[in-house]
Amino acid sequence: MTDFAATKRLFHLPEGIVYLDGNSLGPLPRAAPARLEGTLRDEWGEMLITGWNRAGWMDQPRRTGDRVGRLIGAEAGHVVMGDTLSIKVWQALAAALELRPDRRVILSDSGNFPSDLYMAEGLAGLLDKGHELRVVEPEALAEHITDEVAVALITEVDYRTGRLHDMRALTAKAHAAGALTVWDLAHSAGALPVDLSGAGADFAVGCTYKYLNGGPGAPAFIYVAPRHADHARPALSGWLGHAAPFAFEPRYRAGDGIERMRVGTPPVLALAALDAALDVWDGVDMAALRARSLELTALFIEEVEARCPRLQLVTPRAPDRRGSQVSFRFAEGYAAMQALIARGVIGDFRAPDIMRFGITPLYIDEADIRRAVDVLAEVMEGDLWDDPAYRARAAVT
Amino acid sequence: MTDFAATKRLFHLPEGIVYLDGNSLGPLPRAAPARLEGTLRDEWGEMLITGWNRAGWMDQPRRTGDRVGRLIGAEAGHVVMGDTLSIKVWQALAAALELRPDRRVILSDSGNFPSDLYMAEGLAGLLDKGHELRVVEPEALAEHITDEVAVALITEVDYRTGRLHDMRALTAKAHAAGALTVWDLAHSAGALPVDLSGAGADFAVGCTYKYLNGGPGAPAFIYVAPRHADHARPALSGWLGHAAPFAFEPRYRAGDGIERMRVGTPPVLALAALDAALDVWDGVDMAALRARSLELTALFIEEVEARCPRLQLVTPRAPDRRGSQVSFRFAEGYAAMQALIARGVIGDFRAPDIMRFGITPLYIDEADIRRAVDVLAEVMEGDLWDDPAYRARAAVT
Repeated sequence: MTDFAATKRLFHLPEGIVYLDGNSLGPLPRAAPARLEGTLRDEWGEMLITGWNRAGWMDQPRRTGDRVGRLIGAEAGHVVMGDTLSIKVWQALAAALELRPDRRVILSDSGNFPSDLYMAEGLAGLLDKGHELRVVEPEALAEHITDEVAVALITEVDYRTGRLHDMRALTAKAHAAGALTVWDLAHSAGALPVDLSGAGADFAVGCTYKYLNGGPGAPAFIYVAPRHADHARPALSGWLGHAAPFAFEPRYRAGDGIERMRVGTPPVLALAALDAALDVWDGVDMAALRARSLELTALFIEEVEARCPRLQLVTPRAPDRRGSQVSFRFAEGYAAMQALIARGVIGDFRAPDIMRFGITPLYIDEADIRRAVDVLAEVMEGDLWDDPAYRARAAVT
Repeated sequence: MTDFAATKRLFHLPEGIVYLDGNSLGPLPRAAPARLEGTLRDEWGEMLITGWNRAGWMDQPRRTGDRVGRLIGAEAGHVVMGDTLSIKVWQALAAALELRPDRRVILSDSGNFPSDLYMAEGLAGLLDKGHELRVVEPEALAEHITDEVAVALITEVDYRTGRLHDMRALTAKAHAAGALTVWDLAHSAGALPVDLSGAGADFAVGCTYKYLNGGPGAPAFIYVAPRHADHARPALSGWLGHAAPFAFEPRYRAGDGIERMRVGTPPVLALAALDAALDVWDGVDMAALRARSLELTALFIEEVEARCPRLQLVTPRAPDRRGSQVSFRFAEGYAAMQALIARGVIGDFRAPDIMRFGITPLYIDEADIRRAVDVLAEVMEGDLWDDPAYRARAAVT
């Protein structure tokens, strides 16, 4: 039984704030400053260059990768950290396309995060072999998985609506059609149980600064299924993915398995902060996390719908079809969110009209939800939003 | 007049150590721990998601880029930080190749860092259009710049020998042949004056954990000459290189100038450490740095040659042909370097037989050089290296 009152105490949460934006940037783990200071003073400061071996910096992308791997149902030794999520999307997609050389369709949906689509577009342009990035409505994704599709590039949880794709079913459908899958777990890792291995996912990528609380710009991760790990060709063939990086050979030879998805020098300081953040997860049972997430999101939906009739729910109501965020549509959403933030409830806004609230069970509890709804109801109340002067004022508060 | 005794005091250097490996990983700037703690506690901790604007995290890759830009002779607004050096090499090379669509040769030399060659090899393979990576001897580089060459990918200072290429002459030769240049400044930035603008360089990339002391895995930088900045197409087309990242448009539109070379979310913590490290450079005159570097390297060469006859200099003797490191060849170099490190003088070893010493004027002074030579002479002295038992012992000390 996970003690969420205890996990909440492991975070620094500013006085008077209800933070419902941990799906964008998680808060500071209390242990992170001391951990980072140790990395700076005791490792970098004292060990200097020898820290690469003595402090284990060189292997940290794999060690930390395994810690993330446990949270996403990856086989041990098949996740590695590094770079940014956009780079990891590109890397996974390039490798996947090469495993399906006779197909030309990259399938994705309009609920995918734009950077994933941009990276796919850039890769298709570079390859110049007629690849088509086919972007369909999220609900129509399954029916578009045909034998034309080389790779389905899917973000499991929609960054705007919080809608959850069925990873197992879509992966099975892709495999039946002879296609591969690249799953983006940006809004899944740490938000809900993920079972990459059980679902048969081919590739997966994600970031660690959202639900995993690794800090602004924390490193990304990549997973390659064991059956592909020694066949996937790394297009970004950097020295740390080489079979023998310190032999300084003139030609590239891909390292074993997930090692080949490493590119350049690991971001040691960022990995230290992330590692401190991952300590919080050590005692967390993912099923308990999911139960609490669904309980809190359900409460939030119920209370907001009861008290804020102007707001229209866009997150699926069915528990098995949503992640750990709740979004509402409101034409004056930008102004309303500014007003809310000014009153100490931090969510965020996504154009054109989405008010987005991340419900992160590690540090959000029922009292936070009730307080957030109270403030939201106050912001939304009465006939104020029919008054242009009020709307203008709210926008600049 | 730069006060190098003062800059030395700005670094933490472990007691009893002479650190001649700052060309691999610079030491800890004394200001870095407090700076990073402030970024963690006052920015991430208190501002949470609002730090992207309030603490200026989003613009930091450009701000820090300009600080690096000053040290490498870049025009203001044409350098941006992010990713790793390998990624930046790839990005520059991909953009450059696209500017020379009718040519198929990527020219480089065997003194280039292997990761640069690996990335070029990976890119050529991915493009699958018959690009040839032509790797020649460093001394033969100029004569191989012909009208077949699309791009010359050159590391200015050889990571093993310290040999310095003539950036101005090679760039002029490349341009005369209709080719472009990508300069890797890994061992140049902070090591000697670089004049990208004056030399007419097309692209340049580099890392910040060597002479710039940004910390293990510190972010890389990329420069694109103003004349190319709005034409270079970003193959790694991530959202932060988009003209309007937060409009979340479905299609990619490249941002203005150097902005388009951004890819994913900036590494905020690593940039904070780097920024503290760059403060040290504020008062440093690059001509004075170069003068001191040449003085110290000349002293080191002279003393080692006088006292360690077994060591064979591989760094060019002519001051204008070397960077800020000195390398010697010795068949038992690995063992000798281990013995040296065990005695508190830290250099490094590069296979098969190179003992490498970085002479970094910000914190290395004449006393350090003399002490290093004393210890090196002690390690090398007498007939010991003819004795297999001693060699074996030295290797494990």
